[in-house]
Amino acid sequence: MPNFSINIIPDHKQVTANEKESLYHAMVVAGIPLKASCGGKGTCSDCKVLVREGKVESLTTGMLTEEEQKQGYMLACQCFAQSNLVVEVPEESKLTEHRIVLSNNPAGGSIAQNGDERIGILEEEPERAGEGPDIPLFKRLFLKVPEPSLDDMEDDIGRVIRVIRKETGVELLRPTLNVLLTLPNILRQAGWKVTVSLAEGKGYKSVEITGVEPGHIEQKYYGLAVDIGTTTVVAKLVDLESGQTVGIKGTYNKQAVYGDDVITRIIHTNEYPDGLRELRKVVVETINELIEDLAKEQRIKQTDIRTVVCAGNTTMTHLFLGLDPTYIRLEPYTPVVNNIPAVRASRAGLNVYPMAWVQCITGVASYMGGDVTAGVLVSGMAFAEELTLFVDIGTNGEMVLGNKEWLISCACSAGPAFEGGGIRHGMRAMRGAIEKVRISPGGAKVTCCTIGNVPPTGICGSGLIDCVAWLYKSGIIDRSGNFVSDVKSPRIRDSAEGKEFVLVWSEKAGRFTDITISEAEIKNLIRSKAAVYAGIRSMLQMVGLPVEAIDRVVIAGGFGRYINIRDAIDIGMFPDIPLEKYSYVGNSSVKGAKLALLSKKARDMLEEIAKKMTYLELSIGNTFMDEFVSALFIPHTDLGLFPTMQKR
Amino acid sequence: MPNFSINIIPDHKQVTANEKESLYHAMVVAGIPLKASCGGKGTCSDCKVLVREGKVESLTTGMLTEEEQKQGYMLACQCFAQSNLVVEVPEESKLTEHRIVLSNNPAGGSIAQNGDERIGILEEEPERAGEGPDIPLFKRLFLKVPEPSLDDMEDDIGRVIRVIRKETGVELLRPTLNVLLTLPNILRQAGWKVTVSLAEGKGYKSVEITGVEPGHIEQKYYGLAVDIGTTTVVAKLVDLESGQTVGIKGTYNKQAVYGDDVITRIIHTNEYPDGLRELRKVVVETINELIEDLAKEQRIKQTDIRTVVCAGNTTMTHLFLGLDPTYIRLEPYTPVVNNIPAVRASRAGLNVYPMAWVQCITGVASYMGGDVTAGVLVSGMAFAEELTLFVDIGTNGEMVLGNKEWLISCACSAGPAFEGGGIRHGMRAMRGAIEKVRISPGGAKVTCCTIGNVPPTGICGSGLIDCVAWLYKSGIIDRSGNFVSDVKSPRIRDSAEGKEFVLVWSEKAGRFTDITISEAEIKNLIRSKAAVYAGIRSMLQMVGLPVEAIDRVVIAGGFGRYINIRDAIDIGMFPDIPLEKYSYVGNSSVKGAKLALLSKKARDMLEEIAKKMTYLELSIGNTFMDEFVSALFIPHTDLGLFPTMQKR
Repeated sequence: MPNFSINIIPDHKQVTANEKESLYHAMVVAGIPLKASCGGKGTCSDCKVLVREGKVESLTTGMLTEEEQKQGYMLACQCFAQSNLVVEVPEESKLTEHRIVLSNNPAGGSIAQNGDERIGILEEEPERAGEGPDIPLFKRLFLKVPEPSLDDMEDDIGRVIRVIRKETGVELLRPTLNVLLTLPNILRQAGWKVTVSLAEGKGYKSVEITGVEPGHIEQKYYGLAVDIGTTTVVAKLVDLESGQTVGIKGTYNKQAVYGDDVITRIIHTNEYPDGLRELRKVVVETINELIEDLAKEQRIKQTDIRTVVCAGNTTMTHLFLGLDPTYIRLEPYTPVVNNIPAVRASRAGLNVYPMAWVQCITGVASYMGGDVTAGVLVSGMAFAEELTLFVDIGTNGEMVLGNKEWLISCACSAGPAFEGGGIRHGMRAMRGAIEKVRISPGGAKVTCCTIGNVPPTGICGSGLIDCVAWLYKSGIIDRSGNFVSDVKSPRIRDSAEGKEFVLVWSEKAGRFTDITISEAEIKNLIRSKAAVYAGIRSMLQMVGLPVEAIDRVVIAGGFGRYINIRDAIDIGMFPDIPLEKYSYVGNSSVKGAKLALLSKKARDMLEEIAKKMTYLELSIGNTFMDEFVSALFIPHTDLGLFPTMQKR
Repeated sequence: MPNFSINIIPDHKQVTANEKESLYHAMVVAGIPLKASCGGKGTCSDCKVLVREGKVESLTTGMLTEEEQKQGYMLACQCFAQSNLVVEVPEESKLTEHRIVLSNNPAGGSIAQNGDERIGILEEEPERAGEGPDIPLFKRLFLKVPEPSLDDMEDDIGRVIRVIRKETGVELLRPTLNVLLTLPNILRQAGWKVTVSLAEGKGYKSVEITGVEPGHIEQKYYGLAVDIGTTTVVAKLVDLESGQTVGIKGTYNKQAVYGDDVITRIIHTNEYPDGLRELRKVVVETINELIEDLAKEQRIKQTDIRTVVCAGNTTMTHLFLGLDPTYIRLEPYTPVVNNIPAVRASRAGLNVYPMAWVQCITGVASYMGGDVTAGVLVSGMAFAEELTLFVDIGTNGEMVLGNKEWLISCACSAGPAFEGGGIRHGMRAMRGAIEKVRISPGGAKVTCCTIGNVPPTGICGSGLIDCVAWLYKSGIIDRSGNFVSDVKSPRIRDSAEGKEFVLVWSEKAGRFTDITISEAEIKNLIRSKAAVYAGIRSMLQMVGLPVEAIDRVVIAGGFGRYINIRDAIDIGMFPDIPLEKYSYVGNSSVKGAKLALLSKKARDMLEEIAKKMTYLELSIGNTFMDEFVSALFIPHTDLGLFPTMQKR
């Protein structure tokens, strides 16, 4: 098969492909990732490209509009080269670096602050300088081991264990054979003054004595806390002695090129014999790149990282370790494992200290992973009197309701709308995404703010919520999401896909076309918000409590960072309780992972939370469906549930 | 350096050696092991050979008698070839297969039975046909795992663990990653009927789920119980399902060519850079040969052996795992480790299932190993009301005194006399060894029985005890071990080494010379028996109890099997209490290892015993030395301690 040369403009990169390999695949392999919500199946229009020179075969046109087709756009995932090519990749098709929420400190600029409706922000857990962590997963201790005598003839390792017990209170200790092989000479050559290394592995009840070195080793040692998100991966490098975060990096999950959501990725593993291996490989690569970056930045050796905690949803942890995710997707949705015992870094494929233990935080169900367990820990709700609602919204909405007595959780597939998927001009929260919208009555004036303050190329989840809220508040759409027929504005027009509202005219946009939202898309978003609200109500119903019983709402996740809570309440997505009860916890997944790195108490709490948390499968019974149908209005069929909107 | 060819007769084996390599070393390497109590240092005369042709350089003559030297005997360990050679190895220099006590069933013949003074024999622990072991270290379970449904969405491994818990009561379970990788498909393809494999590793508090296989696996699986003795190694192949011993094999420890006792072997590791590696290699080889033999005999695959328990003295377990034994020998005698966590068979070098856990029974001190812990378990003394004395005599005498309230142990270096060492015509309990002696008054008639009923080539430990007892009872020696001057017999004569008694004339012996015992050798044996008795008394002193307080004496070990208890009491080695209080427990080391294979309760008891057992270091204080000096008479300075002898 001949290999064709493909010249990518405007970047002037060179790629080769044969006639059996899609342009999309060739570019992804060459490190030029394209967007592809559908995972390269030709059913969205994310990966559109312009073939400027050469001959291609194009199988389908997917969701490309007639206009786009007229302009020569093709789906890269459906195109196969027949000759050498010159291909132009428009800005909006590129998978550029997302804005990843690394900490709660606003990234700066006015966009990141939600103006006067800004929500309360839970502080990053204080860095306990001086105090130090309780029992980190890896620890070094300088010991003065009592020398043996005829009055005290205990064995060498017994003497070491005796002192470790005294210093740490840890009862169950287990030396590795390697430690025993060198122990007697090290103890004696070092005059019985040694530094021991202790490592805990999840699922192993005894703490491993992994090293005994002569004298006082002053070298620093680190742990890595990783949030393996479906979209983004964030890693914190933590000094295990001080408990300080010394570095933090985030990047998009390289699995994104195989599809936006977990379902698409699971299907990929089923459709390709090598699919699981591939997905595992790229997420491990993603984490390894973060490790390399962090180590370079902090000028440490990667092998100084001695323990790793990962938090991720159940599909992500399965893919990370190469576990078959097939049955996560199929009723009755059983994962292989929720509580994964620690594995060695060398086995997990992470480029840190090879014998380091890598552990994943325990999850609860196929759609309730360790990232949520971590979030519940960080929220503090599992040990509080107040009734707290924890909400982490992405493609899936994961919600937990409860207090120190009980915890209920549920997951609703909100659909990809909040991540910008399934919306023609939707996009993830990347540079150029509209994330804030204000519309004056009747639509006379529309104000859009974008991430990075650049001309808009699309609209992200928080922008969509704003958009629908203000279309409603400005009287342009009615409670069902239909355009009100007597409102006239040049921005409201008919299209092949039905009525639509022009948010940004093409001349002001960072792309060739107007940025619009259609009636169908508005209804799509209403379905998403209804799913979230219905999930919350279903949990409340289960325990027989009204919405007003909620004392606190904790929002987590990257999407939650930029959401305008007032607007989200106004469209009926979140309960209509006072704004001051809402707070934002940031990336609680990586925060929980960090706590697990540092504290035995936190690790015990995580296990307790996972054990205590009941998972409510919403597809069983009618409660959720009834609630969902009632929530398909703005804000809700029962206006009594939204007193603030009722007052307007 | 030229390589000389050495022709070994009468076996007609060919060996090569250069001028820097001793004949002893060359032959050992070629698989022709010679005796060498001293470990090949030229200080005994065990490895004597006759150089029939060719030229050698001989460094020293060691303990060779003048007569032997005249006959042309040389020490193989001190001889270096200068040309091609023909070397004759006399029968008594060969390290032939020992008689190894495999079970309590007398090997047959009159020799093995101690006539009317035969001691009670504890029965082999009953083979619990049908009943089965409680929780073996490795176990297979056929499980019907409940299928998941929307009412029961637990994860796959959680469902498996739930059933295992119900069936076994084991709470802490930990799957390997390999199990998780194949679990979901195996469960579903097998219709949720699977066979799981469970493995426990010492020091790991959770039981490992090492395998999940589809359907009902009927294949048998085995455990191996090994007694790693300084002289002999015994292995039992145990069906882990029925608890039955299906095969048993014993052989001499290949380390024997590096010296008879643990001290010589420790010194070897210090003197040769590769010494430790060498000693580890040969003992692993020894065990692997037993494994191969057992597997062949039982027609099983070696990988069907899924778990291994070893019991051995502290030096043996150190050498087995390659741990540095140096400080076992040096005051204050601290071993590296008494409680060794399990290691994988692949790491230990054993040719069984590579992931099988290999565990060593926990010991107490440098000279109180896991073999004794096992013996105490098998004796039942640690959970009994009666005050029991446990005695395991070899080169070292290990003794334990106690009951369910307390346990004291001590080790006395009895010297090599009981193993036939340090006595010119002494030998181990091998074919041709005199093991029973009767002497008529005045020495007119001497009756000797040998192992194998062949012409005698030497005298072993039990024969020596008989010999000294009957030399005393026949009036030939006095209480101090001196020949009584007014007894005249052709058997009593002067030699270069002082007075000696001829046990067997050369014409009746299986060697060229008379078999004799000298006054010095008698005194040597008296020192050995005094050390044992003084150890027993020292323990009694520590708790302020008289000899009569002992309710039971349990004798263990290969040497104990053939000992004549009456004679041993008569020379003052064992307490003078009624014979019926004595019993013989056989190879309690391998028996204890077998119990550990089969029963969690036994494993817990072993840990409890090791924790509970106080070790009395006899070199501290004056008690032992005072007792020792008092015991240097036949039977003792204080005749009141030996009422039976007093009555005569």
